[in-house]
Amino acid sequence: MVPFEKLGIVAGRGDLPLKVAQRASSMGVGVTVLILKDQADPTLYQDQYACHIIRMGAAQASIDLVRSLGIRDLVFVGAVNRPSLFELRPDKKALTIVGSSLMKLGDDGLLRSVISYLEEKEGLIVHPIHTILDDIMPETGQLGALAVPSEVQADIDKGCAVLNAMAGLDIGQAVVVQNGVILGVEAAEGTDSLIERCGHLKRAGREGGPGPVLVKLSKRQQTERADLPTIGPNTISAAARAGFSGVVIQAGRSLLVSKAETIAAADAAGLFLLAVTDGNDTQ
Amino acid sequence: MVPFEKLGIVAGRGDLPLKVAQRASSMGVGVTVLILKDQADPTLYQDQYACHIIRMGAAQASIDLVRSLGIRDLVFVGAVNRPSLFELRPDKKALTIVGSSLMKLGDDGLLRSVISYLEEKEGLIVHPIHTILDDIMPETGQLGALAVPSEVQADIDKGCAVLNAMAGLDIGQAVVVQNGVILGVEAAEGTDSLIERCGHLKRAGREGGPGPVLVKLSKRQQTERADLPTIGPNTISAAARAGFSGVVIQAGRSLLVSKAETIAAADAAGLFLLAVTDGNDTQ
Repeated sequence: MVPFEKLGIVAGRGDLPLKVAQRASSMGVGVTVLILKDQADPTLYQDQYACHIIRMGAAQASIDLVRSLGIRDLVFVGAVNRPSLFELRPDKKALTIVGSSLMKLGDDGLLRSVISYLEEKEGLIVHPIHTILDDIMPETGQLGALAVPSEVQADIDKGCAVLNAMAGLDIGQAVVVQNGVILGVEAAEGTDSLIERCGHLKRAGREGGPGPVLVKLSKRQQTERADLPTIGPNTISAAARAGFSGVVIQAGRSLLVSKAETIAAADAAGLFLLAVTDGNDTQ
Repeated sequence: MVPFEKLGIVAGRGDLPLKVAQRASSMGVGVTVLILKDQADPTLYQDQYACHIIRMGAAQASIDLVRSLGIRDLVFVGAVNRPSLFELRPDKKALTIVGSSLMKLGDDGLLRSVISYLEEKEGLIVHPIHTILDDIMPETGQLGALAVPSEVQADIDKGCAVLNAMAGLDIGQAVVVQNGVILGVEAAEGTDSLIERCGHLKRAGREGGPGPVLVKLSKRQQTERADLPTIGPNTISAAARAGFSGVVIQAGRSLLVSKAETIAAADAAGLFLLAVTDGNDTQ
């Protein structure tokens, strides 16, 4: 049982916030969805849950709202497109929280600033998503029916090594590797776009060798309370379309949405799906 | 005057090998173009220069050919698409040169292996391209009419810092930065493709702020005798189309083809063009 009666779900894009709302509700927790304006789709929530639309730049109004609702416990769920300063229109409180570094911090730095502020100065508690969705983080090991083909192991090792070397840089944490060559590195474009372009760059299959591998790990400094790397059925279908051989994620530091469906999709497409602990244990 | 009478130009893609052939000819050097099969376009050279088509995997035949022509001095010019093992069909000599690591080495490692072998075991000399095209390497400083806008300086610093941190990884050495955010990292897709996708990811211009910056530096371990980062008029027009504010390259470690034309294109499009020494001197 979760140790709170009320939960505020700060909802970004996608349907993951809805899954959190459904699970929390089913556990008897009173759910309020704080719909991030221009990010979450209000129609997903409005008929079923108490909802309020909040604007990212309106920090004072949002904090006042959370207080007036008697909410102490929050989760941040769903992707957020980084707004322009024009769209953000930060209020005085928002500027206080992130300071003059507003547009200079990477996404991680920004999120960490916001969460630290809410916890240290406002007495709120920001929980990681797996407090609610306790089956969303994969455990270490082979997840689907297919084992990692031995000739792909070196590519997995290389992908993990490159990501670990890049981990302090606050850029994307996914790479695509084939035959020892890094075909693509993710930054702001998103994993699906990375997969698609690497499908066009991959070595022709005339040799019958294995296709590329997607390796997606958590950044070292990434807060587990927001924005962990996420894969789901769409990732698998994109990888299958692009002729990949498999997908590697991180156990305990990434989100596997619709786990059963994702694994079934990998099995059906003949892709392996592996969860490594920290990228230094890829065997 | 160059210190040799005969030059073998190992020609990859694009028209840069032709420029080298023209310049060397104009200096009185006897030019033989060694056209890499499936990479260089033979029709560019066949009417004007002594030409032989060589296959990348046929190392013994290529070395024998170079010897029989009395050539000691070589340049490697032009991009090369990494072939599949099927396409490469390496002969015994090629396998000796790169060893069992053939498909595991990154592009840099492969090129360094080949060049070391030719110099140390075969007594050939591989010259950097600027031995011939002595105006192709930019000097440090502002190259076009436009100075770097002060609000872009932090993005240039960040791009250089990220590239320097990635320099040991043998992946691409170009990034796109805007407002402190790394929009894209180049791997195998090429700079034009990087520019195009970052054009779609850039922050909307409603604030009147500056567009993204392309920063393209040489990898630390990259041999200057092949495959230095290259920009030219096409890079500028791609960056202009995508709404970029400017382009940063590396003095003495990158190739600026068609220099006058490239600078004129940047000036016409309102882009700055800056050459930094090593990415630690970005002011």
